[in-house]
Parts: sequence; C-alpha cells; structure tokens
Amino acid sequence: MQYFPAALQDLADQFARLPGIGGKTAQRLAFHVLELPLEDAQSFANAILAAKQEVHTCPVCQNLTDREICPICDDDMRDHSQICVVAEPKDVIAMERSREFGGVYHVLHGVISPLNRVTQDDIKIRELLHRVGSTDVREVIMATNPDTEGEATAMYISRLLRPMEVKVTRLAYGVPVGSQLEYADEVTLSRALEGRQEI
Amino acid sequence: MQYFPAALQDLADQFARLPGIGGKTAQRLAFHVLELPLEDAQSFANAILAAKQEVHTCPVCQNLTDREICPICDDDMRDHSQICVVAEPKDVIAMERSREFGGVYHVLHGVISPLNRVTQDDIKIRELLHRVGSTDVREVIMATNPDTEGEATAMYISRLLRPMEVKVTRLAYGVPVGSQLEYADEVTLSRALEGRQEI
Repeated sequence: MQYFPAALQDLADQFARLPGIGGKTAQRLAFHVLELPLEDAQSFANAILAAKQEVHTCPVCQNLTDREICPICDDDMRDHSQICVVAEPKDVIAMERSREFGGVYHVLHGVISPLNRVTQDDIKIRELLHRVGSTDVREVIMATNPDTEGEATAMYISRLLRPMEVKVTRLAYGVPVGSQLEYADEVTLSRALEGRQEI
Repeated sequence: MQYFPAALQDLADQFARLPGIGGKTAQRLAFHVLELPLEDAQSFANAILAAKQEVHTCPVCQNLTDREICPICDDDMRDHSQICVVAEPKDVIAMERSREFGGVYHVLHGVISPLNRVTQDDIKIRELLHRVGSTDVREVIMATNPDTEGEATAMYISRLLRPMEVKVTRLAYGVPVGSQLEYADEVTLSRALEGRQEI
C-alpha cells in the first residue's frame, strides 16, 4: 500500500470509518471523489460541514432541524396535546408518511439497551417528562420499534408517566397490510388475534 | 421528506451520488456524520479537499501521486526500460503485491470501450507512445484485464507499438494458482494448454 498517495489513503480511511463501508468500497469511493470536478468535491466537503453546523435538535421535540424550532413543533395546525414518542428522527419521517397523525413528536435518540450500554439517562426521557409536566398534554403514544428494546423502553417510560395523569397508548400490533398470513410469525399472529376488532 | 433539515438532506444527496450508495444507505451515512464529533467531521471534509488538491497524475507514468514524480518512477533501482501497462492505479498496487516486477508502469486510466463511449483518445495511449518513442524502452508488458475490452485495448496498443521496435508482451493466461481444474472455464483451460511449458 506504500505506493498509494497519502492523501488518497487518508480519504479511503475516512470512508472506511463509515458504518457498512469496507476497505475495498472505501478505496473505490476515494477514487471516485478524485475523479469528481473540483467544485463537486468542494460541495461534498461543504455539505459535511454544513450538516454538522446547521443541524441541531429542536428544543421542544428533540428532532433534528436547521431552524430554531422544528417545522412540526412550530405548526399551529397540529394538536400539541398529543405526543408520539419515537426512537429516531427517521421514525418521524415514517410516521409522517402515513399522513394519519396530526399531533407532535418526541424523539428519544435511542432506546434503553443494557447490551450497548445505553441507559435511561442517555436518551431524551428527562426532556419528555419535563414536557409532559409543564405543557398541556392529553395523550402520549409510544411508537418505539416493536422489538425487545423498543418494548422495554416504552414500558419504562409509561411507568414514569403514570403518576402524571396522562393517557399513554401504544401503536397496535397486528399483521402488516398487504402481507400474507402464512408468512406471519406466531407472536405477531397472536397479538393480531388479541387485538381483533369488530367490523 | 419535507421534515428533513435541508443541510442533512443535502449531505444524504451527496452520499447518494457516490457509486454503489443507494438512498437508504446515504441517509444512514448522513445521520452517522451528524453524530461524529465536530473535529472528525472536519477531518473527513478536509480529507476530501486534500485528496483533490494534493493527488495528481505522475507526469511520467500517469499513476496517481502526491509528489512531483511518483515513487516508482523516481526509483533508480527499478528497470526503466521495462514498462508494464495497466488500466487503473489499483492494478499497479495488485502488480506490486506480487513482488515479481522490477520495472516501471504506465497507467492508461481506462480501456477502450465503445459501449461506454471511451475511445483511444480518452485514455493515456498518446503519453505511452511518446514515452516509448523518447526514452530507452526495451519491453512493454501489456497487463490490462483479461476481458474483452482489456484484450482489445492491449491489441490496439501493441499494433501502434510495432513500428517502434520494442518488444511487446502480454501477461500469461492459464489456470489460477490454488484453483481447481474442474471449476476452470473452457477458454481459460484451452489458453493454459496452448501456453504449456516444459518442467
């Protein structure tokens, strides 16, 4: 590798530190950047710095934003008494795509995960409790992922919210729309059966 | 997507323009960069600019380098009368790994490929001819890839070199070391048979 120019090797090393990018791919990406016109390489470098400098968390919901307050929290048409709690900013986008929810969000930035050494103090639970305690909140909808850690985090938060006299709900479990019953796992099927509704 | 901060979307778009990086991966990478410490993001941005600014092609062999002349061309211990012609800078590294070759290189930066609209004028053939014509070159070893375009490019260049009274050779074809005969394709096997040598 000593015949690789140092600056090219540096760039490949930078790419290789990104998640899911191996050594060979990193090398290929570095070669690609070298072949870009100078202004394209500059706007790539600038995009990295701009994202770091301009994007921060919304002081209300903790979602990522480049404004003082994020557009959802700043929207008077939305129901600010209904808070949907999600683990990550990308979950807000998934919820928004459903066009079903008219309330606001709270982004935890993670879930409690003892295996990964993430405790309740590492995610934005304190901010949620403060928000529920200090503003007029009617309902908190737990929308963490339906896996073990998401479940445990939702349970933990709902216990903390219980004394605050707020309705706490959880997204319904069931068979996904458009899926086939024969491929549904038994836990999902039994949850779908439990939650059956009259038609 | 309108609830994604613009700077974050920009960065994801930049990643998505890299080869082999899809929309979802680009988003994941952009989130990762946001979570980096500021100095790490800065050194990533700097690595992009440094690679563009410091790395250029060696005026002798066209390989990428950050010096005036690349370390191989600058090495008096190597045989400068023997030029190995490869398609890409990474092929130089592959050849160097074999520790077998003591000559110098010429990097074409591509192969002739009518399908991809790459003509003989788009790759560094002119520079090779000038080099062979103006310096004391004994042998040119064609080491483009053993595929159709690599073959055709090697044939094209060897025809141009014929009047220049220089020996032109090609890497040997044959069965790869460590492979199994039953998995070798018939073209490789027939080339291996043609090129058989006394032991």
